[in-house]
Amino acid sequence: MAALSLGAASTAAFSSNNKIISSRSSASLKSPVARVRGTIPTTALSSSMSTDPVIAELYKRKSRPDYIPGRIDDPDYVRIFDTTLRDGEQSPGATLTSSEKLEIARNLAKLGVDIIEAGFPIASPDDFAGVKQIADVVGNEVFEDGYVPVIAGLSRANEKDIARAWDAVKGAVRPRIHTFIATSEIHMRSKLNKTPDEVVAIAVNAVKYAKSLGCDDIEFSPEDAGRSDPEFLYRILAETIDAGATTLNIPDTTGWNMPWEFGELIKKLRENVRGAENVIFSTHCQNDLGLATANSLSGALNGARQLECTINGIGERAGNASLEEIVMALALKGDEQFVGGPGTGKLFTAINPVYITPTSKMVAEYTGMKCQPHKAIVGANAFQHESGIHQDGMIKDKSTYEIMTPESIGLMRGESQSGAGIVLGKHSGRNAVGTRLRELGYDLDLDKLNAVFARFKEVAEKKKGGLDDDDLESLVSDQSGSMNELWKVTGLQATTGLSGIPTATVKLMGPDGVERYVSSTGTGPVDAVYKAIDQIIGVEVTLESYAMNSVNEGIEVSFL
Amino acid sequence: MAALSLGAASTAAFSSNNKIISSRSSASLKSPVARVRGTIPTTALSSSMSTDPVIAELYKRKSRPDYIPGRIDDPDYVRIFDTTLRDGEQSPGATLTSSEKLEIARNLAKLGVDIIEAGFPIASPDDFAGVKQIADVVGNEVFEDGYVPVIAGLSRANEKDIARAWDAVKGAVRPRIHTFIATSEIHMRSKLNKTPDEVVAIAVNAVKYAKSLGCDDIEFSPEDAGRSDPEFLYRILAETIDAGATTLNIPDTTGWNMPWEFGELIKKLRENVRGAENVIFSTHCQNDLGLATANSLSGALNGARQLECTINGIGERAGNASLEEIVMALALKGDEQFVGGPGTGKLFTAINPVYITPTSKMVAEYTGMKCQPHKAIVGANAFQHESGIHQDGMIKDKSTYEIMTPESIGLMRGESQSGAGIVLGKHSGRNAVGTRLRELGYDLDLDKLNAVFARFKEVAEKKKGGLDDDDLESLVSDQSGSMNELWKVTGLQATTGLSGIPTATVKLMGPDGVERYVSSTGTGPVDAVYKAIDQIIGVEVTLESYAMNSVNEGIEVSFL
Repeated sequence: MAALSLGAASTAAFSSNNKIISSRSSASLKSPVARVRGTIPTTALSSSMSTDPVIAELYKRKSRPDYIPGRIDDPDYVRIFDTTLRDGEQSPGATLTSSEKLEIARNLAKLGVDIIEAGFPIASPDDFAGVKQIADVVGNEVFEDGYVPVIAGLSRANEKDIARAWDAVKGAVRPRIHTFIATSEIHMRSKLNKTPDEVVAIAVNAVKYAKSLGCDDIEFSPEDAGRSDPEFLYRILAETIDAGATTLNIPDTTGWNMPWEFGELIKKLRENVRGAENVIFSTHCQNDLGLATANSLSGALNGARQLECTINGIGERAGNASLEEIVMALALKGDEQFVGGPGTGKLFTAINPVYITPTSKMVAEYTGMKCQPHKAIVGANAFQHESGIHQDGMIKDKSTYEIMTPESIGLMRGESQSGAGIVLGKHSGRNAVGTRLRELGYDLDLDKLNAVFARFKEVAEKKKGGLDDDDLESLVSDQSGSMNELWKVTGLQATTGLSGIPTATVKLMGPDGVERYVSSTGTGPVDAVYKAIDQIIGVEVTLESYAMNSVNEGIEVSFL
Repeated sequence: MAALSLGAASTAAFSSNNKIISSRSSASLKSPVARVRGTIPTTALSSSMSTDPVIAELYKRKSRPDYIPGRIDDPDYVRIFDTTLRDGEQSPGATLTSSEKLEIARNLAKLGVDIIEAGFPIASPDDFAGVKQIADVVGNEVFEDGYVPVIAGLSRANEKDIARAWDAVKGAVRPRIHTFIATSEIHMRSKLNKTPDEVVAIAVNAVKYAKSLGCDDIEFSPEDAGRSDPEFLYRILAETIDAGATTLNIPDTTGWNMPWEFGELIKKLRENVRGAENVIFSTHCQNDLGLATANSLSGALNGARQLECTINGIGERAGNASLEEIVMALALKGDEQFVGGPGTGKLFTAINPVYITPTSKMVAEYTGMKCQPHKAIVGANAFQHESGIHQDGMIKDKSTYEIMTPESIGLMRGESQSGAGIVLGKHSGRNAVGTRLRELGYDLDLDKLNAVFARFKEVAEKKKGGLDDDDLESLVSDQSGSMNELWKVTGLQATTGLSGIPTATVKLMGPDGVERYVSSTGTGPVDAVYKAIDQIIGVEVTLESYAMNSVNEGIEVSFL
């Protein structure tokens, strides 16, 4: 993680004022007073500028424009609306506690997301408390440059939901109510059992009610817009604009649209909805056909200036657009691939991408929704290279196979594997193996390298997961005929149970050929074994790997 | 899985001829003799037609056109080129054995993929053997309707690689050589250290050499085409067509292109490459920005008629386009969203989607590359619904939140959870909980349901992973004040070690209040414990869940 340096003034403010100053007033939304932000010393104070040279290249664009609900003064600026805590938490099985939500919200603010949708306050008392805490805490931590995330609460289009959402978010400097009702024929008929006229009336009333509570940042979503009649959308959206909506979010709720189809929908809405010029259009793309990121970007190309997304792309069913994919696509391609839409065609966000990796890891950990290794940007393999041709290219020039640096998204490339994210496996070539061995201090002559490489190929065919440095060194030792086994386990026995103290006895043969044994207790049987080994060898033992395998029938735990 | 019925004639053929008839000749590529396919009785014999009504709706389109290397007689037909066994196997850590590759290839043939890229024969002797086995076996199993997958082998653009690839694939009825060289400025300069003229000469020579071996199905890929100068691509592609290439594959090797950018590239190539009308254009999109599926579909919109992809989207770094996403997008949207390109705009493939789920599971298992729960189409959550609003919709009409049936991709929806893929969690509403309880036989009155639902909300707030049927039934029992604890573990002790026999003693208090204890041996300590429990209770014990937790410092294995 790149540490961002703080100016002297702000450092002083940090030490003198270490509590959060809340603002319960939402009156001054358009020009919030910058407040000193305390609590976490490692936080970036400026939300969109960085002094780190590694990421400076991604930040040479314009700065974040002032926040005004229904307007953005820079026509190229794209707001990022994160719904990890609402739609993401709707992932089957991804329940978060209030304190987990608060930690994630803090990271989202470090990323610099413009809007945090913190939850669905009516859903349960815990949901309400979670949203309120985020509004009261993160929604009041104003960065030096005036940035503070908008805190949004979701509500169905009824007064009870909306009042509850408002109670939860109103403590934020910038509170937003997000209300929705379905507009597709199938949803109106089968789910709502309402006529289109009734649906329009409900939507208009909901927006008016939100406004009557004192909220002037109101988002309206016609659910399942991707399968709705565009003519009906023109009507309901125009009426909700009249009622006071400032952001119109267009959900492709079932992930039904092709990128060009969704882009065309955004374009048509901007052209045909009365009053469209007074609101921000937003995308909300589900991923059922794997197209959520593409559809969001196609929306931006066609004039959407808010993109809804989640960390790691989690969400109902196949999830949502991934924040990291959208943000990095705009960071890398925003300058040149968005011409023909509104603005100058040089789109940008104010996301600080070095917080992508830590936020991704936190969300995966807390929700239990692990990313697959080949997840774009944040997957374990996203910066790994296996084939010999790719590894050869990476050693010569990293830009042959990487379009961004891992450091730019906060992933520090390990020292190992040539610093090139290379996994040595069956597809690796002689160059990659030789390079890594030289880095490990083995400068082999050609015959020796060839012999090691031949053996490497044999082993790599069989070994899943590739060969690491230890494996490589073993291959070199094998070739020179010297084995470095120092201690050998010659006996082991362990006892444990519900009561009583876990006890183990271990017998080791030392490098001197002498056997020693000792028994030890521990917090569990494996701990007892390691304590015993520790006593014999006399050095602190670190557990490097631990494997538990079950073998066919019966239940065998071979715990060593 | 839908069982496909066989006609009487083919059933007879099955029983009388149960071995594979190989064809070593590749002379009759254009009209292969249909051979009887034996070996796996559950296999679909017709590659693109189904008698199962559930999937028939996905198959009412035209039938698969005859295979001719550089030509497709139906302008709307899109070939699916699967490279799970080549690019997919290049995923870091995803090494496959030859027998695993063969099993996957058989499933790819059941899916009906047009081309299987079976590997990179020069990479190692095992790679060669793997490709050859697939060519000799799967490449000779001709379906009743004449379908047999093309078997392709990858080779760099040199004679040694190409000769090796040809040796591996030539036993197939339809063998293909796929050769490539990089054409981007960065790759030519940094990796190849060659001038553009040299690169053209190498490519042309490679294609000519492949043709000289007797291969008339030759694919050429300009690696990193997505970052190459289009003018240079026009030149090198025209010259490789002259040399004999029949398929031109356009790789976005680093996942650099936006969907509209990649589509435009395909369009420009089709318009500007001399001889383009005599070859098939193909896409090969990496997923570094999460756009591989979108880019492939955008390629098809612009006239690509071969799409390269992998099962589950595995591959180098962030992987490739997912076969399942591409195929289902074309199945659902091919009829209406591809107008404006060549053909009638009603694109289709001949993939039989009911094999998607089993093939996905096999590839995940053999490669170790697990899909994230929110992976589109094949993720564990892809057909799950958590929020109350969504569950309510699903119970009323499944098409409110699902654009395809899970059955259509071979995923049989379980009996549980209302048959609607519903996970009951904190976002679930009273309707979903009540519905499921009624299905479980609990028809509660309103007061009782409200009490259970209140308790449900409390538990669901805390419990990750949602509540299953057992949990729900416990809630009902809790409300009626009856606990069903029958047996209670009152004592437990286990011993194991390197030598000696794992032994456990278990003490249980029965429903009659009497304590019994017994000791037992097992294949491991957990097995011994279960055997002991078995002896006391006298019924077969099934292990339902097994958790191993490490607790802070030290190493504790609490194995019960």
